[in-house]
Amino acid sequence: MSETQVKFLLGEQEIPTHWVNLMADLPGDAPPPLHPGTKEPAGPDDLTPIFPMGLILQEVSAQPEVEIPEPVRGVYRLWRPTPLYRARRLERELDTPAHIYYKYEGGSAPGSHKPNTAVAQAYENAAAGIKKLTTETGAGQWGSALAFACSLFGLGCEVWMVGSSYDQKPYRRSMMETWGATVHRSPSDVTEAGRSQSTHPTGSLGIAISEAVEVAAQNPDTNYSLGSVLNHVLLHQTVIGQEALAQMAAAGEEPDVVVACVGGGSNFGGLTFPFLRRVIRDGANTRFVAAEPAACPTLTRGVYAYDFGDTVGLTPLMPMFTLGHDFVPPPVHAGGLRYHGDSPLVCALVKAGLVEARAYRQNATFEAAVRFARAEGIIPAPEPAHAIRAVIDEAEAAREAGEARVILFGLCGHGHFDLSAYDAFLAGKLEDPEFSEDDVQAALAALPEAPSLA
Amino acid sequence: MSETQVKFLLGEQEIPTHWVNLMADLPGDAPPPLHPGTKEPAGPDDLTPIFPMGLILQEVSAQPEVEIPEPVRGVYRLWRPTPLYRARRLERELDTPAHIYYKYEGGSAPGSHKPNTAVAQAYENAAAGIKKLTTETGAGQWGSALAFACSLFGLGCEVWMVGSSYDQKPYRRSMMETWGATVHRSPSDVTEAGRSQSTHPTGSLGIAISEAVEVAAQNPDTNYSLGSVLNHVLLHQTVIGQEALAQMAAAGEEPDVVVACVGGGSNFGGLTFPFLRRVIRDGANTRFVAAEPAACPTLTRGVYAYDFGDTVGLTPLMPMFTLGHDFVPPPVHAGGLRYHGDSPLVCALVKAGLVEARAYRQNATFEAAVRFARAEGIIPAPEPAHAIRAVIDEAEAAREAGEARVILFGLCGHGHFDLSAYDAFLAGKLEDPEFSEDDVQAALAALPEAPSLA
Repeated sequence: MSETQVKFLLGEQEIPTHWVNLMADLPGDAPPPLHPGTKEPAGPDDLTPIFPMGLILQEVSAQPEVEIPEPVRGVYRLWRPTPLYRARRLERELDTPAHIYYKYEGGSAPGSHKPNTAVAQAYENAAAGIKKLTTETGAGQWGSALAFACSLFGLGCEVWMVGSSYDQKPYRRSMMETWGATVHRSPSDVTEAGRSQSTHPTGSLGIAISEAVEVAAQNPDTNYSLGSVLNHVLLHQTVIGQEALAQMAAAGEEPDVVVACVGGGSNFGGLTFPFLRRVIRDGANTRFVAAEPAACPTLTRGVYAYDFGDTVGLTPLMPMFTLGHDFVPPPVHAGGLRYHGDSPLVCALVKAGLVEARAYRQNATFEAAVRFARAEGIIPAPEPAHAIRAVIDEAEAAREAGEARVILFGLCGHGHFDLSAYDAFLAGKLEDPEFSEDDVQAALAALPEAPSLA
Repeated sequence: MSETQVKFLLGEQEIPTHWVNLMADLPGDAPPPLHPGTKEPAGPDDLTPIFPMGLILQEVSAQPEVEIPEPVRGVYRLWRPTPLYRARRLERELDTPAHIYYKYEGGSAPGSHKPNTAVAQAYENAAAGIKKLTTETGAGQWGSALAFACSLFGLGCEVWMVGSSYDQKPYRRSMMETWGATVHRSPSDVTEAGRSQSTHPTGSLGIAISEAVEVAAQNPDTNYSLGSVLNHVLLHQTVIGQEALAQMAAAGEEPDVVVACVGGGSNFGGLTFPFLRRVIRDGANTRFVAAEPAACPTLTRGVYAYDFGDTVGLTPLMPMFTLGHDFVPPPVHAGGLRYHGDSPLVCALVKAGLVEARAYRQNATFEAAVRFARAEGIIPAPEPAHAIRAVIDEAEAAREAGEARVILFGLCGHGHFDLSAYDAFLAGKLEDPEFSEDDVQAALAALPEAPSLA
């Protein structure tokens, strides 16, 4: 017989009214981003060609909380508050005394946590009179979320999708088009950047970013939108962790460890920052684990240095762990985690020892994902499957220690568009690539000149 | 700016405790199913080779309510209660005074309403000591739901998937396999029925049913499971309508019209039966609209007669509207609605004039689906898109009449696995097949000899 599902729901009035800005509580002074030309600290004015002032002010805010505009909360109600589950069947399957909880963000229409920020960004741009947003997308989660948000706020949406993904994932493209977005295969022939890269027909996130930024910078009624990395993006995601705090309280438990996957950092920051603020302020005894792919081990194998956010080198220099902006990770299915750098805020927390990072191989990750799906019923996206891998390890450690440790993790999206990867795993045909040490060394040798962060 | 989302949630304690058995309130005497050999009324004993007694008693129950076993409610908590939304953005887009509400069942892990019955069936079989369930699936929604339910109750699951769908929808197959099911391409070489049909390599639901029933009938620890049509299946789905009744009361509104798509009838019955019971008992003034595809117009163009539930002719004869069990509908994307017959309960309600049926063409249906997705953010499956087409027509009629009519419809699943159809529609390449009058006449000429229902 099956276990009774244990779930913690909140009422709509409990959708948070404010976002948590961890910048205000970060230990020490955070190094500023630098202008890519002058190498001087980049200011709000450097961002106005592609971002509205509402988002720029959030990006540089020193306030510990930022009020959520009511129209954004109004749209959040479509899928928020999201449920917190206790994974009783998984606990039984693992024969562990640990209590495992997960916060599930896959119930949004695009299927992940990404619309938490897409909606906030679409709102601020619409309020500023902007008519269209451009962006890049790899596997398609972020592009889908922005297409969804733009359709709700009456904005146009133009997405440059990495060529190889465009060919392999036609359904994510169809999803964006169903919501009214225009999707270009990148490199495209509609931008200078794209035409200059026509010798790289499979494309890359770096090229796609350059195309989207170029169009936004050239058109006054068009802005650019980013799905992770930046402070304001992580800020918007903190609705996840605030709801989880209230739900863990309803469960009557305190997490001993909070686990989330990390690519650019928006899912990790969204779940952990409200818990981290409590640790920083009150000295609570909570561990934080960031799970990343061994194929792109930014936090576990990168260096802490100033680097570009994109491959072409158009963005400000950001203080972060990086594998080098030239590094191209091998093609694992967790497309959302294939990024050479990481959010400066998350990197500062790793640097300060508040967050520990771990890297997992692709097959070990999918083994955990299938185990989870058969126990709990939800098929996870490959990205949060990395967190599940870490959780299973933590639960087994709790069993060996004989301790009823409380584990909370973020299940940031479902795997409905990743079933070809499950198919390959179940058939024993999933590749298990490692990163190339030579490629990383070459990319690190090409880091831009900038002040040392050592 | 976007509208604030209006949503009506229920607490977990409001998951219904009983299912609604409309059989007890049906006007007049319902004609009984007949044994396919003797043409005598079929009794419970005829069903024991493939169904557990718990489900057989539900199938023939005359009680107005059937208690939901606590382990079933325990699993329902994974995704129930489901939300009821008001479609304010769609109302604005249609410029209609109508108030449009929809009950959304796509939040379950398999993505539709199907697990409401899959979980109940898996529970009863597990409680009876059965080790494995067999079933057929066309597009894959039902097979996914049963694979999901079996994984939660520790049952084996063996699915025969119609050959053409098996080839075209590999992700639905991967989903079932991720939950641990074995999926056969039908016709398969593991059954007599399959081997006898090897000259029909693309398969059909009729062949797949024969294969699944054969294996269940031959193995004492294996039973067969059906995803629609039968009384007990519709019974299990009435959790949808009961929640919707409570949520409409919370909204302070009474529906003037309730709309749902109909294939085998489980989604339609699940939403409407609790409302229909009120109409039958209290004479409430509510209309009910059943939306079906013009390519398979069972209720609008079929005859009311005894017919087999499957193509091969193994099942009891059921009193229903039918296009003839030999009729093969043209390949529309709403695979869940491609059935030659319909639930006897729903057919009796149409026959009694309590339900009106309408048929819609494929392109008109997808036009409505895209309009809904862009306004409300959720991409519907092709099946409920038929209901949306009917709702838009109702809303436009309300505008013409200048009346603030209240419309409720069932959004029984998302379209994540149907985006190739959206792609074809957006590219102007979606076919718009009509049924063949000649094929229907031929199939009706092959109806089995049985008492007239005229």
